[in-house]
Amino acid sequence: MGRWEPDAAGRLRRAALELFAEQGYDATTVAEIAERAGVTSRTFFRHFADKREVLFAGAEELPGRMADAVRAAPAGLAPLDLVAAGLRGAAAQIGGSRAWSRERSRIIAGQAELQERELHKMAGVGAALADALRERGLDDDTVAVAAETGVAVFRVGFQRWLTQTEEADLGDVLADSLDRLRSLAGR
Amino acid sequence: MGRWEPDAAGRLRRAALELFAEQGYDATTVAEIAERAGVTSRTFFRHFADKREVLFAGAEELPGRMADAVRAAPAGLAPLDLVAAGLRGAAAQIGGSRAWSRERSRIIAGQAELQERELHKMAGVGAALADALRERGLDDDTVAVAAETGVAVFRVGFQRWLTQTEEADLGDVLADSLDRLRSLAGR
Repeated sequence: MGRWEPDAAGRLRRAALELFAEQGYDATTVAEIAERAGVTSRTFFRHFADKREVLFAGAEELPGRMADAVRAAPAGLAPLDLVAAGLRGAAAQIGGSRAWSRERSRIIAGQAELQERELHKMAGVGAALADALRERGLDDDTVAVAAETGVAVFRVGFQRWLTQTEEADLGDVLADSLDRLRSLAGR
Repeated sequence: MGRWEPDAAGRLRRAALELFAEQGYDATTVAEIAERAGVTSRTFFRHFADKREVLFAGAEELPGRMADAVRAAPAGLAPLDLVAAGLRGAAAQIGGSRAWSRERSRIIAGQAELQERELHKMAGVGAALADALRERGLDDDTVAVAAETGVAVFRVGFQRWLTQTEEADLGDVLADSLDRLRSLAGR
């Protein structure tokens, strides 16, 4: 392996996930992850602050991506259509690899510190969505309900996307979950 | 103070909340709480396992109360009307004292361990609601959306109840938040 390392970050992520699955999150060291990926620990730290961040690096951009998508949506949309635009933005950010997301989710479920980090991430998603909806001129009560609804639909849809047998586009699954909520609410 | 101690649990709760507010949660000991309440530490431990449980004792029954209310709702209700019944059950359990809930909420917001405990409580609420909705014969996808919607409405409504200036019944505020979601979804 020379100094030029194509997709070192991608290989580090895959190596970390393999090791977390094989021997547990707690037992895995940065040195082992780097070795499995065929890079030095220094290269690891060029890409990630610590082993936890291997699981959360992309996810940190999620709130911003959702908020940007809400801001970029056409004028005149109803509140839940703005939420739908935000969900599309989220899907574009994290819908790339279902196998990765599934494995990541399994590892997070097994470790309290990671679960807490994931819960904080979702709180960040709700707050960013609320800010963007407020900027679109919605009143505070509507913002609160619409943002929490967005988080709820995201949780349900993401979980469905991870667990359903057929392959599907995350954006479509999220849109379908929102439609399901709309039809429940219409009864 | 004799051996008969009227409402020792209530006095311990009030004493704990005062001390947490005055000197911080971490700095407060069980012995201080008991002294402020005019009881012995032994009496404290007859009511609560530790100082954290002073804040969560009643809340532990919340998931069960919501689920029971869903189970007891009339036949033939639509999914979100079953959720509404669950929210009424929750309000009956925790809507007693807004001053207490407000102060409790402020203390939890200032301490990471308590926040985590609160997040786990809400996860328990969602799971119990889902179980009860499943027992009412809803399919899995509807259960997932309806339960997460219930949690979202609970979060929004409870927060509104805590922060709005006028006194109101928690059950009414939760019902209003659900109506707001329905009207958003109908657009």
